[in-house]
Amino acid sequence: MKIGKSTVPHTAICTSDEHTIVVRGQDLCHDLIGKLSFADYFFLLLTGRQPDAACSTVLNATLVAIAEHGLVPSVQASRMTFAAAPDALQGAVAAGILGCGSVILGASETAGRLFADVAARVDAGEALDDVAAATIRSLKENRQAIPGYGHPLHKANDPRVDRLVEVAAEAGADMRYVRIAQALERAIPDIVGRALRMNVSAAIPAVLLGVGFPVASLRGVPILARTAGLIAHLAEEAETPSGFALSYQATRELQYDGQVPAGFGSAA
Amino acid sequence: MKIGKSTVPHTAICTSDEHTIVVRGQDLCHDLIGKLSFADYFFLLLTGRQPDAACSTVLNATLVAIAEHGLVPSVQASRMTFAAAPDALQGAVAAGILGCGSVILGASETAGRLFADVAARVDAGEALDDVAAATIRSLKENRQAIPGYGHPLHKANDPRVDRLVEVAAEAGADMRYVRIAQALERAIPDIVGRALRMNVSAAIPAVLLGVGFPVASLRGVPILARTAGLIAHLAEEAETPSGFALSYQATRELQYDGQVPAGFGSAA
Amino acid sequence: MKIGKSTVPHTAICTSDEHTIVVRGQDLCHDLIGKLSFADYFFLLLTGRQPDAACSTVLNATLVAIAEHGLVPSVQASRMTFAAAPDALQGAVAAGILGCGSVILGASETAGRLFADVAARVDAGEALDDVAAATIRSLKENRQAIPGYGHPLHKANDPRVDRLVEVAAEAGADMRYVRIAQALERAIPDIVGRALRMNVSAAIPAVLLGVGFPVASLRGVPILARTAGLIAHLAEEAETPSGFALSYQATRELQYDGQVPAGFGSAA
Amino acid sequence: MKIGKSTVPHTAICTSDEHTIVVRGQDLCHDLIGKLSFADYFFLLLTGRQPDAACSTVLNATLVAIAEHGLVPSVQASRMTFAAAPDALQGAVAAGILGCGSVILGASETAGRLFADVAARVDAGEALDDVAAATIRSLKENRQAIPGYGHPLHKANDPRVDRLVEVAAEAGADMRYVRIAQALERAIPDIVGRALRMNVSAAIPAVLLGVGFPVASLRGVPILARTAGLIAHLAEEAETPSGFALSYQATRELQYDGQVPAGFGSAA
Repeated sequence: MKIGKSTVPHTAICTSDEHTIVVRGQDLCHDLIGKLSFADYFFLLLTGRQPDAACSTVLNATLVAIAEHGLVPSVQASRMTFAAAPDALQGAVAAGILGCGSVILGASETAGRLFADVAARVDAGEALDDVAAATIRSLKENRQAIPGYGHPLHKANDPRVDRLVEVAAEAGADMRYVRIAQALERAIPDIVGRALRMNVSAAIPAVLLGVGFPVASLRGVPILARTAGLIAHLAEEAETPSGFALSYQATRELQYDGQVPAGFGSAA
Repeated sequence: MKIGKSTVPHTAICTSDEHTIVVRGQDLCHDLIGKLSFADYFFLLLTGRQPDAACSTVLNATLVAIAEHGLVPSVQASRMTFAAAPDALQGAVAAGILGCGSVILGASETAGRLFADVAARVDAGEALDDVAAATIRSLKENRQAIPGYGHPLHKANDPRVDRLVEVAAEAGADMRYVRIAQALERAIPDIVGRALRMNVSAAIPAVLLGVGFPVASLRGVPILARTAGLIAHLAEEAETPSGFALSYQATRELQYDGQVPAGFGSAA
Repeated sequence: MKIGKSTVPHTAICTSDEHTIVVRGQDLCHDLIGKLSFADYFFLLLTGRQPDAACSTVLNATLVAIAEHGLVPSVQASRMTFAAAPDALQGAVAAGILGCGSVILGASETAGRLFADVAARVDAGEALDDVAAATIRSLKENRQAIPGYGHPLHKANDPRVDRLVEVAAEAGADMRYVRIAQALERAIPDIVGRALRMNVSAAIPAVLLGVGFPVASLRGVPILARTAGLIAHLAEEAETPSGFALSYQATRELQYDGQVPAGFGSAA
Repeated sequence: MKIGKSTVPHTAICTSDEHTIVVRGQDLCHDLIGKLSFADYFFLLLTGRQPDAACSTVLNATLVAIAEHGLVPSVQASRMTFAAAPDALQGAVAAGILGCGSVILGASETAGRLFADVAARVDAGEALDDVAAATIRSLKENRQAIPGYGHPLHKANDPRVDRLVEVAAEAGADMRYVRIAQALERAIPDIVGRALRMNVSAAIPAVLLGVGFPVASLRGVPILARTAGLIAHLAEEAETPSGFALSYQATRELQYDGQVPAGFGSAA
């Protein structure tokens, strides 16, 4: 069935013949394997460009920052899935990745789009602090969350934020989007009525946009990073299972709000 | 509901408080972000150990080798999924990962287990070439595929194999499992009746087992690597869609083998 | 980690003790197994109410209407996934379900929300045809697709539409949302400039909302229905494989738009 | 890339032109919508045959029996995924289906294959109780679980078993596989050393194989059934969220077994 206008698929990422695999215009075996780190190759795959040194440093730092934060909901989902279906590692990884959505890890992309919008208005001549205040006010009026600010555990300070900013500065990255993220942070208390500090999902786009990472692919960073963390958790699950124990604990205080038939529970 | 024996979950990967995130015993922000590459961090998450230089080189090389090979079935599945559900990048990545199964990318793990078995028998005193021949004979008798040998496109020679072996040798890796893989390759023609050359799914465990990568997590390497490739393909799909065009082409020669009601097609 | 306000989980769907499983207030074994059809049970699970006869008839009809339409993209994705990972049926089903997104099968829900909005304005006193025209104009001005109208194959008439409307009328369902859907269809040509006829994704909410199916769960209907179709396709794939053949055909006319290294292809 | 022998895809499930959709040889709109229940259509899609009355009754009963059992691990995984990614209902359903694996819901298929093997040996002339005892002994010697026997909650008696057997008998189904399942149950205490009663995953194949359901598709029954339950749980999750509360409870007693840096926790 023909859906959409085009019937001929196109790609500019990879082609190959029997002897050679070409990726982004280069010979995979001759030019890339053994010469490029995995994170740099990810950037090349995504953009067609080799990252410069600052970009490589910052991208690796963000991937390390977001790969792992313990038994968060998506890791629990992944370990429970593996416990129930241990033959299919790929299925348990997929279940974990499916939790990288708008509420939890997708905030990196939403925050990045916000920063890009602020940058465009500043480029058009508005003052940064005015745009920042207007942006926060607009989110508040539309009852939208401020993506990348506030954290359920790291309330006063997400320690990954300062470290990522420090790494970016030392690497010589463009710090423009960090300044935008900080301006938004300063604007929050007066408008929202309480301080909400930058969390890692604001810091990641703040440093990555400054080294040329494409805003449209920001969600790919937590997805790739968490895949590494999930594989580690599933290796641990295979050795020392916790998936069913997590599921048991989760329902110990479960409240059933529905009705029961006459006599239910009386014989138990 | 209590399933299994344990009701208390355990982990040794990560813990945190409001100020500090601890991963594998180290302070994430102080010791790891900006100091470790993403691939090295993957190894640390998985094993609790920092990789040495040879391990880091070889692991990066394998991840680069397997991340991308064009519009293979799992990439097609991922791009079609994204075309149908463009709001959920994580869903399209998950669909692609679900194709990293026993037939396509899981061969890395199956081959690795085979190499480990051969190594154990050699350690117990048998000659390598005898064990190799016995292993191939046993697979043939049980009508099982030889995991990691033969490739639908790279028939004479998978170019990634020689390059990965070269990188491992230059990095000073233990080449023992490479020699095992090569012994199996030598044993194939006489027993199977035709040459089947090592493909990338044999080369990956051959070089990784020599630098201490755990055999039980070998399938994690293609899964992590392909996640990077999938994210790149989905970025391309968002810009220049091909998912529906692939699906259109796929069925142009589709043959319907069932029955049709009287008159079907006559008015078309 | 505490995310959100509540720390105690609640449910009103099911509870159980050693002897009895209670679903929506009834004894699963005594009251439901053998007494309720699967589709009726789906409605009970979802709403807590038993469907009346009209609801049962219409719900079954919609599930039958949308379960299968040949080798559509999500079925291709599922069969390719199974070919690559045949040990994990659940993974191939999941890959197919992941394509039930906003563009393809999610239109049932989007169209249903549109119909509910129109109904609310009519309840508030506006004339149906005025609201219909205003709705289509608003979608056009915002460059949004009209969800549930137009079909790539069934251009003049999606045969499932008339049949679903007929089944609903014969079952004695409330036809109000069908009339709304038809009013939108009438409004399209003048405003859009060409006729776009109702497709199955408009007919499904049009008939289901009239029998009390909750608008918020409309996307569940194509998801449940397609799961049945996917399981059938995967049973066929296990017997007579087509997944890799689909993938081969899909790329026969693939165009590579990137660069190649000097000499690429010359030896092939 | 050509993988495998065939390059032309085939199907016998569905074909269509602009006016007619043909499913299993019948006109979807004329012959099926409004005339067949969803469960009967599932059987038709799967086998190409319309189910008889006994088959229809038994298939509906098994789908109702297995669709829902409260906040089991796969439902928890699904609700946590939805909490993190509420825009993608299909992703949360997929995450729940990925837990229908070998340990939890896949037992229906494994038990069914066991019953079919026993039936084949009885057909070849062996006595049922001898084959049953030999089968249990063989599983015990290979340290394999007995699929479909024993339940973590319903220890003395899974109430769904008696009810499914009763429904099958009343519907006039062939009870042969029920007798096989019961023979295995009788053989367990002497050989295993304790009674393990049939659970729902034994009862499902026991009754379904007697009405002609294909053994190779048995895993499809819990997958389809649980999809209905998952959609209901996700509708509840959207109204009264519990996903993050489950995740919070799950880790309240989590034990961290790894090391911590000097000073960790002292300032908390």
